[in-house]
Amino acid sequence: MASIQAGIAGATGYTGVELVKLLKKHPQVTIAYISSQSYAGKRFSEVFPELKGICDMELIAPEDLHAHPVDCFFSCLPHAASAAVCMPFIKKGIRVIDLSADFRLKDPAVYTKWYTIDHPCPELLEKAVFGIPELYRNSIASAQLLANPGCYATSIILPLVPLLKEKGSNITMIIADSKSGVSGAGRSLKLGTQYVEVHDNFSAYSVGRMHRHLGEIDQELSQANNKKVTITFSPHLLPLSRGILSTIYISTSLSAAACLNSIKTAYANEPFIRVREPQDLPTIRDVAHTNFCDISVTGGDNGLPVIIVSALDNLLKGASGQAVQNMNIMFGFDETTALL
Amino acid sequence: MASIQAGIAGATGYTGVELVKLLKKHPQVTIAYISSQSYAGKRFSEVFPELKGICDMELIAPEDLHAHPVDCFFSCLPHAASAAVCMPFIKKGIRVIDLSADFRLKDPAVYTKWYTIDHPCPELLEKAVFGIPELYRNSIASAQLLANPGCYATSIILPLVPLLKEKGSNITMIIADSKSGVSGAGRSLKLGTQYVEVHDNFSAYSVGRMHRHLGEIDQELSQANNKKVTITFSPHLLPLSRGILSTIYISTSLSAAACLNSIKTAYANEPFIRVREPQDLPTIRDVAHTNFCDISVTGGDNGLPVIIVSALDNLLKGASGQAVQNMNIMFGFDETTALL
Amino acid sequence: MASIQAGIAGATGYTGVELVKLLKKHPQVTIAYISSQSYAGKRFSEVFPELKGICDMELIAPEDLHAHPVDCFFSCLPHAASAAVCMPFIKKGIRVIDLSADFRLKDPAVYTKWYTIDHPCPELLEKAVFGIPELYRNSIASAQLLANPGCYATSIILPLVPLLKEKGSNITMIIADSKSGVSGAGRSLKLGTQYVEVHDNFSAYSVGRMHRHLGEIDQELSQANNKKVTITFSPHLLPLSRGILSTIYISTSLSAAACLNSIKTAYANEPFIRVREPQDLPTIRDVAHTNFCDISVTGGDNGLPVIIVSALDNLLKGASGQAVQNMNIMFGFDETTALL
Amino acid sequence: MASIQAGIAGATGYTGVELVKLLKKHPQVTIAYISSQSYAGKRFSEVFPELKGICDMELIAPEDLHAHPVDCFFSCLPHAASAAVCMPFIKKGIRVIDLSADFRLKDPAVYTKWYTIDHPCPELLEKAVFGIPELYRNSIASAQLLANPGCYATSIILPLVPLLKEKGSNITMIIADSKSGVSGAGRSLKLGTQYVEVHDNFSAYSVGRMHRHLGEIDQELSQANNKKVTITFSPHLLPLSRGILSTIYISTSLSAAACLNSIKTAYANEPFIRVREPQDLPTIRDVAHTNFCDISVTGGDNGLPVIIVSALDNLLKGASGQAVQNMNIMFGFDETTALL
Repeated sequence: MASIQAGIAGATGYTGVELVKLLKKHPQVTIAYISSQSYAGKRFSEVFPELKGICDMELIAPEDLHAHPVDCFFSCLPHAASAAVCMPFIKKGIRVIDLSADFRLKDPAVYTKWYTIDHPCPELLEKAVFGIPELYRNSIASAQLLANPGCYATSIILPLVPLLKEKGSNITMIIADSKSGVSGAGRSLKLGTQYVEVHDNFSAYSVGRMHRHLGEIDQELSQANNKKVTITFSPHLLPLSRGILSTIYISTSLSAAACLNSIKTAYANEPFIRVREPQDLPTIRDVAHTNFCDISVTGGDNGLPVIIVSALDNLLKGASGQAVQNMNIMFGFDETTALL
Repeated sequence: MASIQAGIAGATGYTGVELVKLLKKHPQVTIAYISSQSYAGKRFSEVFPELKGICDMELIAPEDLHAHPVDCFFSCLPHAASAAVCMPFIKKGIRVIDLSADFRLKDPAVYTKWYTIDHPCPELLEKAVFGIPELYRNSIASAQLLANPGCYATSIILPLVPLLKEKGSNITMIIADSKSGVSGAGRSLKLGTQYVEVHDNFSAYSVGRMHRHLGEIDQELSQANNKKVTITFSPHLLPLSRGILSTIYISTSLSAAACLNSIKTAYANEPFIRVREPQDLPTIRDVAHTNFCDISVTGGDNGLPVIIVSALDNLLKGASGQAVQNMNIMFGFDETTALL
Repeated sequence: MASIQAGIAGATGYTGVELVKLLKKHPQVTIAYISSQSYAGKRFSEVFPELKGICDMELIAPEDLHAHPVDCFFSCLPHAASAAVCMPFIKKGIRVIDLSADFRLKDPAVYTKWYTIDHPCPELLEKAVFGIPELYRNSIASAQLLANPGCYATSIILPLVPLLKEKGSNITMIIADSKSGVSGAGRSLKLGTQYVEVHDNFSAYSVGRMHRHLGEIDQELSQANNKKVTITFSPHLLPLSRGILSTIYISTSLSAAACLNSIKTAYANEPFIRVREPQDLPTIRDVAHTNFCDISVTGGDNGLPVIIVSALDNLLKGASGQAVQNMNIMFGFDETTALL
Repeated sequence: MASIQAGIAGATGYTGVELVKLLKKHPQVTIAYISSQSYAGKRFSEVFPELKGICDMELIAPEDLHAHPVDCFFSCLPHAASAAVCMPFIKKGIRVIDLSADFRLKDPAVYTKWYTIDHPCPELLEKAVFGIPELYRNSIASAQLLANPGCYATSIILPLVPLLKEKGSNITMIIADSKSGVSGAGRSLKLGTQYVEVHDNFSAYSVGRMHRHLGEIDQELSQANNKKVTITFSPHLLPLSRGILSTIYISTSLSAAACLNSIKTAYANEPFIRVREPQDLPTIRDVAHTNFCDISVTGGDNGLPVIIVSALDNLLKGASGQAVQNMNIMFGFDETTALL
């Protein structure tokens, strides 16, 4: 059984540690190295004692990334920093899976709009494949540069793409009211993610057209729709660590039943999409600690909006789980390895 | 300073205990009795040890409610049961504040539709005043029968009524995506409110047109609008004990700024409505343990829906706090007594 | 690779669902059936939607347990009920793993003292092996009846046994101040485990000599000590779903360093015990969702008590994980299968 | 009714905001100013939107503290910083209530031992009164410099002092296993208080003889005992925002009933101490958001340790509530004003 060497940059964030856990369970992957700016020189299990005996590797410094040959390079670094670190790997022909936002947008102007900097290597954007396996499996198989999508984006794009592609769906309004656990905000220190500020609280933020991930959401929905789609997107912060639930409202010519059917058909053979009945709406608990995205559809009576509920684990199907699913496809492994 | 005697039926539910706490702080109110089916004969502080030294009264049995004269009778009983218990008080001319849903709907057919039983005393519905002080202060002052509104309903009605009354607002779609803490489900035993089921979870339920409180929401919004309004309403269960946040989307001819201004004007002198700027959206923490309802408005660019965020404590402004505010108005006390 | 058929009675409690999850990942085990009193006839994934696509088996009724042959029978039933259901399997010579308290105590009089009923089959007690692999691995290998220990008990027995066996340890006082997540209280409805009662709360219960699991704790500690040991045991309820942390105080002639060393030596080759340094005390997060028990030792200066901290997941090393570890030993599988 | 002007330094920490809330409800106190290093120039309600309409005062800079005359100066600053800021007020003869640790210890050498710096004004230590009203009410009444005690310390000292003073109690061992909510760690940014690190976790820290508050605990217990007492103290971090529960184990010649009686007698007339029966142990919920300290005693059978459980709100009876109680005594106000 062929196997590969994987390197991970930025392994001590919340997506990094999940990626390490998954790859440690993967029989065809060896972790060649893990890096960290802040913790270089420490053992991984000193930073995450839960992994004592599972991953006691020493974290290397960012400047040592090229000392060890790898078949697959994962970047869990923040945007902008990530592209710069990925570039030399891409140029050497090493397959790269970038969990940041840096290679998700096709249009560098859109990148500049949302991230307020010029893209460090716009010439590579064309090369990048947007990593939702259910939509781009063939391109992913041969991708050299994989842009792993955002967590909110995955929860919104997955249920909507089949509907936007459906003839006569005539979708004229999309509102995504999304709720995310706190790990989505990352592991760096912020007042807004201190325990006492989040616990017993619930809040909306960046509502309307303010959240950066609108770039990739608009891009993917518009492409499915063959014309520009502009959604209303309201992220909220939940007092829990992991999971996203999106309640999505659409005005459409289709009934809720037809929408549900369309999604069922599109994902009939997908190992990680579970389409559920209207009376059995997904919850965060159903998908937490799994790579599943659960979806159901209801509402739509008497001309009222159709209501879609989707749920996933922001660190797995919304980040590191999807990254491993993409890696499995890229390297010809069974797509569900380490994920079920 | 005049003072009154108050009786409370159903004092051992979550709204009951909050009501007891508020009335114990009220200098013009003496609690004449508290009743409970399940705990009759026990001291209140045996059931709620937090109130040891504050309220050590013995709970009386429901059959003893008429042994003590009161000026104001509060019912914290469940719907259907509540109307039956309130009826004799109403007939005796005692002022009644009913926290259940029994007297909120003007039309007994609507009651039957949502509660699937015939109303026990439809002849009294006309008499009842719907208890949102900001909308019906004058009627409340002279009310003999006060129907205290539901928690979700209050969070939705308060921000929408000024907009529906605004000339030319032309509101063609309303979606209320509401999120509530667990105390809203009451204190009786249910698998769905067991700790392990709720903790680390978030779920939608009764979405679309399924929740019973649509009766009162439709009634109040339609009245403000002068024609029938049918909203989409999606309640969700939050992993926290108290608080509701509603994210409300409307299609309207007004800008977000105009909506915000309309709400500001309507509630300029209200002691318990805090209208906030678009960049300062309310959160549950801001209103928990208070009688405030905080409201802000944003969104609406390029023809997208206007977004309203409202927040309140479901047990206070959404139940017992509002009940005390109503009582203050009914008996001519300062409206904010025991509430600030 | 040989494989076995397993049956599970009482599969819809919290230990049951964890057991199903583990056995579904086990390559040498097929689940022959799962039973439930309350949910018979339903698919398992209807009761636990998180397992949709993973375990969609139909739950059978308790009376159908003998319709399917099994190699290993697991009971996740409550005490008293469990012994009665296990008995016919034991008599048929089928290997039984009982997760209840029914076969943990050697002395039927002690059973009667703690459980206030006569033991339904005292003649079987002698046959039963107490299932802590680190202490009884050889007996477990050949056990026909395996009594899977309690969660609190495991967290207390594991660190103390090596010390009690140590010559000259002279342990004259043991206090175990234990804190458990809510799943330890089971899935049946209780006011004390309703969300609003537990959330934002922390409480001691059954402190001193009142908790039933003192029976097995006393038994195992006394056996290691070669004379009767009577501990003080204070359980507390934590506002989280899973995990136990025990802070244990002992008066001993040994230093903390000697105690730590003794535990390290005893468990040097154990796959699921992680002994940690004094400055690196275990936390619940380190062991949640794993089969590890983490232990460290500190304190003891100037004649003050030595302090042991142990942590485990009450549903895994404290219940179903340990049950699978025992099964692996009993059937000659690799001991860590499905557990790492 | 005489009234006073109060100034608050460091008003934007968790004890500061609680103090502002209490003083805003106090009919005899006017807040002259509130200061903050980080937020100077902002309105208080911008930092804490929950106080919009309640406290919209502008925060002044630390250098402006002396521009406004006050009768009582509260410092909510961290230790070391606090003494320096309090000093000029003390020298001017203004009454000072210091919520930091700076004036709690009588012996500057002990201060240096625990805080690893020399005390900035050791000459003032003698002047300071340790602010537990139940123990030092008379000295508090005339205190010019009030050292408000620590939260853990209050939960441990209150139940133990009457027992240590009891003739023949012969207490030979004290272990305090204490559990605190996260607000006790303050509002500054720390990885250890980020939401994802604390939620679903429980951990011991600084156990044995490592926590700084041992200085004041030892001092007060030794004084009550008339000879040196050295306790074992194990603080733990709970996944909740506010509240402390201490489970205290003592070896004593007294029975649990005698201990309970001794505590009852000592605090018979105390408005904020609630002594409870052995079967009715205090919980954190019973005291959260109140100034009560609840205490009970159990255990002690057959020579085993007596077990005391005490609970209080770390921000109220453990900090700002006790500070206001002390202020009420110092200025001759009713001791419970703003606290019930």
